Amino acid sequence: MPSQPQLTGWGLPTVPQNAPMPQSAGPPRKFYTLQRVNGNGGNGKGDGIGGPHKHTLEESDKVKKNSVDRWLIKQEKDKRKEQGGDSSKKSYHKKATGNALATVKSHCKDDSLKLFGSCFCPFVQRAWISLEFKKIPYQYIEVDPYKKPQSLIEINPRGLVPALRHGPTWSTYESTVIMEYLEDLNTGPALLPPDAQTRATCRLWSDHINRHIIPGFYRLLQAQDTNDQVNHATELRNEIGKLVDAADPEGPFFLGRSMGFVDVQMAPWVLRLRRVLGPYRGWPEPEEGTRWATWVDAIEQHPSVKSTTSDDALYLDSYERYAENRPNTSQLANAVNSGRGLP
Amino acid sequence: MPSQPQLTGWGLPTVPQNAPMPQSAGPPRKFYTLQRVNGNGGNGKGDGIGGPHKHTLEESDKVKKNSVDRWLIKQEKDKRKEQGGDSSKKSYHKKATGNALATVKSHCKDDSLKLFGSCFCPFVQRAWISLEFKKIPYQYIEVDPYKKPQSLIEINPRGLVPALRHGPTWSTYESTVIMEYLEDLNTGPALLPPDAQTRATCRLWSDHINRHIIPGFYRLLQAQDTNDQVNHATELRNEIGKLVDAADPEGPFFLGRSMGFVDVQMAPWVLRLRRVLGPYRGWPEPEEGTRWATWVDAIEQHPSVKSTTSDDALYLDSYERYAENRPNTSQLANAVNSGRGLP
Repeated sequence: MPSQPQLTGWGLPTVPQNAPMPQSAGPPRKFYTLQRVNGNGGNGKGDGIGGPHKHTLEESDKVKKNSVDRWLIKQEKDKRKEQGGDSSKKSYHKKATGNALATVKSHCKDDSLKLFGSCFCPFVQRAWISLEFKKIPYQYIEVDPYKKPQSLIEINPRGLVPALRHGPTWSTYESTVIMEYLEDLNTGPALLPPDAQTRATCRLWSDHINRHIIPGFYRLLQAQDTNDQVNHATELRNEIGKLVDAADPEGPFFLGRSMGFVDVQMAPWVLRLRRVLGPYRGWPEPEEGTRWATWVDAIEQHPSVKSTTSDDALYLDSYERYAENRPNTSQLANAVNSGRGLP
Repeated sequence: MPSQPQLTGWGLPTVPQNAPMPQSAGPPRKFYTLQRVNGNGGNGKGDGIGGPHKHTLEESDKVKKNSVDRWLIKQEKDKRKEQGGDSSKKSYHKKATGNALATVKSHCKDDSLKLFGSCFCPFVQRAWISLEFKKIPYQYIEVDPYKKPQSLIEINPRGLVPALRHGPTWSTYESTVIMEYLEDLNTGPALLPPDAQTRATCRLWSDHINRHIIPGFYRLLQAQDTNDQVNHATELRNEIGKLVDAADPEGPFFLGRSMGFVDVQMAPWVLRLRRVLGPYRGWPEPEEGTRWATWVDAIEQHPSVKSTTSDDALYLDSYERYAENRPNTSQLANAVNSGRGLP
């Protein structure tokens, strides 16, 4: 076998010469059919006769508001084009705004615990919320995705944020790993409960968020085909529904009255459902009085969440490149496009 | 919007009517070219003149041994066909063999801690090794994937193993969640070290196994196209290489002399590299004297690993349906085929 000097020592696996022919997996199965709400086809026949209007006036207003939001986004984009801006370029925000900017400013001094982050990144926000919640001293270092500092590459050769350095030599990355680490420091209030069984339940539903809700969020945001968008929206709603069903019935948080591990894991996407999926994909506001609405409100209002959140425009703008599915938007976007798990 | 009685309360997201056209992602980039080891093309010209032989006689022997293994698999399959067996049917083993069978027999009595497992499943083996390592009393319940017991569906509606019931009402699933839970019970020897930073390092590399090594294993096993197999084999070797580079230099285990969390996370696939990827995809034996060889040996020889491992034939047979990429082999196989993350 050929030697592979860049790889240590096992030799390249041989490839069978009699491998069977590739099998076609067939066309993807559709598990949801778009139901027309009115107009031709509404009676299910496509004969030009409209069906009954299936939604209330309040819901009509929401639809219209979403249309207006999208129109405003388009206006803004056209304006940038006229001004000579190149809409094919990625738009990154390199500086937090609003509450998050104030928090960055109060954490700019050197500290032995350094969080490398990007202001728009939801995975960073998980670690950031945890630090704020526990009131652990830290230094926030904003990372420009185009000019990753060497100090980040030393921690994570792939250059992904969040990354954490603690002390002169030790570091780690991956948002869930960082959250478990901060928990193990036993400083400030805990996010995981003391009881082993409830801890496991928290980890089980955090795993559900990571493996079912987050990929669903990006699939919906990046989907350009209307039928795909409907399918992904249905799937995302179902996966969020399972999480809501598993939560404490009273709430407002997952385990009850205090914010905990599952809430922090979910918080950045709760914020982005309203600020990103709302305008780009018509994701609806939670219906008043539901358990979901209670939860969303509690997360939005928590001081550690608010202090790490920028103004709405930052998110709307940062996710435009995802919503238009521009090539090489991020390693995450590429992974979703290629059908891989999150990087 | 149409009401969705089966889903609670948020209304279906509206779909933008002016969604942009789907963008083509272009053909996938090839990052590895098959290098012919001998014969026509070996000189890079394809002119019928052979190039130099690039591997040693020992490696040639391995290649030949793998060819023999594949030939034996084919013989066995043809024999079953002749006997009227239907090779298009899935072959599941419903009973452990060898050392694992002895362990099943000694854990058949009712216990408040019940592990629902399937004898061939690597995710189950992680939980199983942990229980054996910690010497926690437990009852092993073998699950037939075609006749999932109601007691399992009550724990995990998707019917996936491993699932754990502890006490009359509480249960959980997902192998990593189960391993963290057993750790939190503080019974028997610990798999995670006490130091917060080393714990984080263990979790970081466990995450690497789950997100980069395991999907790579199944992509290689399920790939039917020869070029895909070469690409996936290269990728899998690189991802394993990163893990080996991160391990304690002396070993033999990840953190040093004792088996720990990362070793147990990786152990079921270490076993299956030799028993499954070897014969089906020519995955090579570790080269003697390397850090990788030391690690593989230590894992293979550990009593908790041995006591949960069946005879080689069980794995060779159980994974045939993956290697042939038969439709609906498992939820995991479907996820890999559709390009989703692991279920």
